Amino acid sequence: MKKLVRPEIPRKTIYRLSIYLRCLQRLKSNAIRTVSSDALAKAAGVKPTQLRKDLTYFGQFGTRGLGYDVEQLAAMITDLLGTKRLQPVILVGVGNLGRALLSYRGFEQEGFEIVAAFDLAAEARRARGIKQPLHGMEKLEDFVRQVGARMAILTVPGTAAQEVTNRLVQCGIAGILNFAPIVLQVPEDVTVNNVNLAIELENLSYFIQD
Amino acid sequence: MKKLVRPEIPRKTIYRLSIYLRCLQRLKSNAIRTVSSDALAKAAGVKPTQLRKDLTYFGQFGTRGLGYDVEQLAAMITDLLGTKRLQPVILVGVGNLGRALLSYRGFEQEGFEIVAAFDLAAEARRARGIKQPLHGMEKLEDFVRQVGARMAILTVPGTAAQEVTNRLVQCGIAGILNFAPIVLQVPEDVTVNNVNLAIELENLSYFIQD
Repeated sequence: MKKLVRPEIPRKTIYRLSIYLRCLQRLKSNAIRTVSSDALAKAAGVKPTQLRKDLTYFGQFGTRGLGYDVEQLAAMITDLLGTKRLQPVILVGVGNLGRALLSYRGFEQEGFEIVAAFDLAAEARRARGIKQPLHGMEKLEDFVRQVGARMAILTVPGTAAQEVTNRLVQCGIAGILNFAPIVLQVPEDVTVNNVNLAIELENLSYFIQD
Repeated sequence: MKKLVRPEIPRKTIYRLSIYLRCLQRLKSNAIRTVSSDALAKAAGVKPTQLRKDLTYFGQFGTRGLGYDVEQLAAMITDLLGTKRLQPVILVGVGNLGRALLSYRGFEQEGFEIVAAFDLAAEARRARGIKQPLHGMEKLEDFVRQVGARMAILTVPGTAAQEVTNRLVQCGIAGILNFAPIVLQVPEDVTVNNVNLAIELENLSYFIQD
């Protein structure tokens, strides 16, 4: 059933589901059992019409006049996002940003574990306080296949990003969180999410113009 | 003229303009003087119709059959994004992620300079190899007003984020790049761009489900 529904859901909706889930988890931890769509929308920073539209992709939720059952809606979104089991993630490129992400605790709290890091200069990087195993690039393919990793964080320089991506795709990585400032070319069945911090700042700078 | 046009432009278009600009800069550095909308769209990872639609917000560009003048289009987008002058940016919250961003060289290349960092425990953090001045939180308001900073990077824990945001808004910050995993409440004239790395991974995990 999920298979049939999935292709029709817009990517932005999937993003917003993650945000709704976090709001619901906060409500749950405050022992709140039901929430109106207006209140949930406000907490998530979206319009109520947007929230209701997003949730209709998954059938009927909520009771008119009573709102959503917090626990039930949270369980449904968790199930749909497929984050119930701990996903092994690898990281490629241990520069400043890569190192920061390796020591970032926010991932594990959310069910992701960076199981290993890879770098051309693995030996040189090893000393600098990273708890994950750090391997040379020649180990990449064997490791990914052995662990069955499907997700990778890419923090290599832009000049190396496409070549590394080709290798990742070749050995079975299907989801890439890309911090390199280039547009990666990948097959259709591979998903790339781009995080470009300079572009985020540039975007802000547009909105603060006098 | 710009003032009249600006509010109508969708935020996603502004994002994509940043991406087009980077593609154009790469073409320029390769001494390529004109580019077709199909080729530029492919490099930017969008559909040609999307590219053409985005550019129509700014009038007529390109010559039918010849494509866009690379230099002219790049100059126009740079001017519109308001990134010609170096924008001073402050950073609040010097944990792992904050420290990584302070040493990230990608910002300066793009015309942004993190001029100072703030943290509750500024003394304790100072030793750890940050080149920017690091101040206690009590200095925040005076510094922002003195420097005339309008942009801030927020890397404090979620529990502190709203309170810090209120202070930032109060002293004149109009654009916030938020890494804290909460939805910030701000006045209408303040822009928040959220970067939630855990949500990016969660989103990927949805798309790699078997």
